[in-house]
Amino acid sequence: MLELILGGARSGKSSFAEQLALESGLEVIYIATATVGDSEMAARIAHHQQSRPKHWQTVETPVDLAKTLQNYAHPQACLLVDCLTLWLNNCLFDQTVCWETQRQLLLEQIGNLPGRQILVSNEVGQGIVPLGAISRQFVDESGHLHQALAKLADRVFLVVAGLPQVLKG
Amino acid sequence: MLELILGGARSGKSSFAEQLALESGLEVIYIATATVGDSEMAARIAHHQQSRPKHWQTVETPVDLAKTLQNYAHPQACLLVDCLTLWLNNCLFDQTVCWETQRQLLLEQIGNLPGRQILVSNEVGQGIVPLGAISRQFVDESGHLHQALAKLADRVFLVVAGLPQVLKG
Amino acid sequence: MLELILGGARSGKSSFAEQLALESGLEVIYIATATVGDSEMAARIAHHQQSRPKHWQTVETPVDLAKTLQNYAHPQACLLVDCLTLWLNNCLFDQTVCWETQRQLLLEQIGNLPGRQILVSNEVGQGIVPLGAISRQFVDESGHLHQALAKLADRVFLVVAGLPQVLKG
Repeated sequence: MLELILGGARSGKSSFAEQLALESGLEVIYIATATVGDSEMAARIAHHQQSRPKHWQTVETPVDLAKTLQNYAHPQACLLVDCLTLWLNNCLFDQTVCWETQRQLLLEQIGNLPGRQILVSNEVGQGIVPLGAISRQFVDESGHLHQALAKLADRVFLVVAGLPQVLKG
Repeated sequence: MLELILGGARSGKSSFAEQLALESGLEVIYIATATVGDSEMAARIAHHQQSRPKHWQTVETPVDLAKTLQNYAHPQACLLVDCLTLWLNNCLFDQTVCWETQRQLLLEQIGNLPGRQILVSNEVGQGIVPLGAISRQFVDESGHLHQALAKLADRVFLVVAGLPQVLKG
Repeated sequence: MLELILGGARSGKSSFAEQLALESGLEVIYIATATVGDSEMAARIAHHQQSRPKHWQTVETPVDLAKTLQNYAHPQACLLVDCLTLWLNNCLFDQTVCWETQRQLLLEQIGNLPGRQILVSNEVGQGIVPLGAISRQFVDESGHLHQALAKLADRVFLVVAGLPQVLKG
């Protein structure tokens, strides 16, 4: 089963996703796309880590998401990816990575994996269209990705103020 | 019948509006507010054009929206305006245009037209309030316009990740 | 009873909150967090004032929100706070104020006040993550505050294009 959890910054989307993972009763494998690039991000990562059960396995995957999902998915596993926005960011801003390829690989695979997958991603498109072509590209790719995944997903939620709203399923 | 389709950038709002127009069974007249100002915008316009049925008539209307609606509305026509955000942008940034007048003309007319009208617009107000008085004015006018149109509309949708949510109707 | 009204810029959240206050039949005390800092803000405040009934008492509270709520709450009063976003802004950007303390005081109190409280706040987290650590902090604190208040609130609404959507209650 595939679930997509959308929400704004600090909307409570990660907490909701973690709660779903916990309640699944499956073995939870946490796939972290964040990299400890600077002190601010390190603090954000530490904050997220504290809130997660200690026995969850963590797999750091800044870029090769499709490969990690393929390697770790099994019928008794719940893969929790937090978050797609940072993955998109990592792919777009790393000159050695082809975003189109990564995106394609994910979309080809994500609907056919055994077990359960929960994908967390930021809603970034409901503010003013940002200045700068790269920001606009980021917003565009994010929106396209959400649309493609929402089509494949069994359930889609938008979390606002910690309150999950069902968009699909 | 008047319908307002809101959504963030790349939320799937245009696709949803086009699907509604197609399903109407009426003669669809596509009212494009975009102008080919630069190569990026040209690419966006081309992208949108490819997704539309070839037999739809297209009327380019960067500013005089009320006049175009008046001229083309008839009981067997579905007018699809994509999008109000660019129309607002065109009106605000063209020194020869009075936005207040354009806005007034639209609001006086839109509730009394024969046939069906589908208006697409960007939700731009749920991000951080942007720096710069002109950006704030843009966000304000957009919000005011949406409120006024939502009052007049028979149905209002918010599209998130390609999934239309009914706000009214 | 505690109600939280969220919405984007010019979403109609204040009008909806004022309508709820009016319909409460209680004595409405309007708690304004805005300060007349510049001419633009003065115009915004004047715009809001015109839309409110003249007999509502107004209490200006840029920072000490918990104290004002404590002082004015009583079983026959409806306290309408508009808005938390400016209050957060005032607390974060005033070097003499400790935001953590103000936040703590509000959260300790708000669930235990007599009468009715309606809190209005901007949804600012659904746009692109802004550049600048202070903007990110603002978005983060806003999101955390909304989550904490939504947990305590009896009812939570998100207003889009003037149309209130029930998130809780």
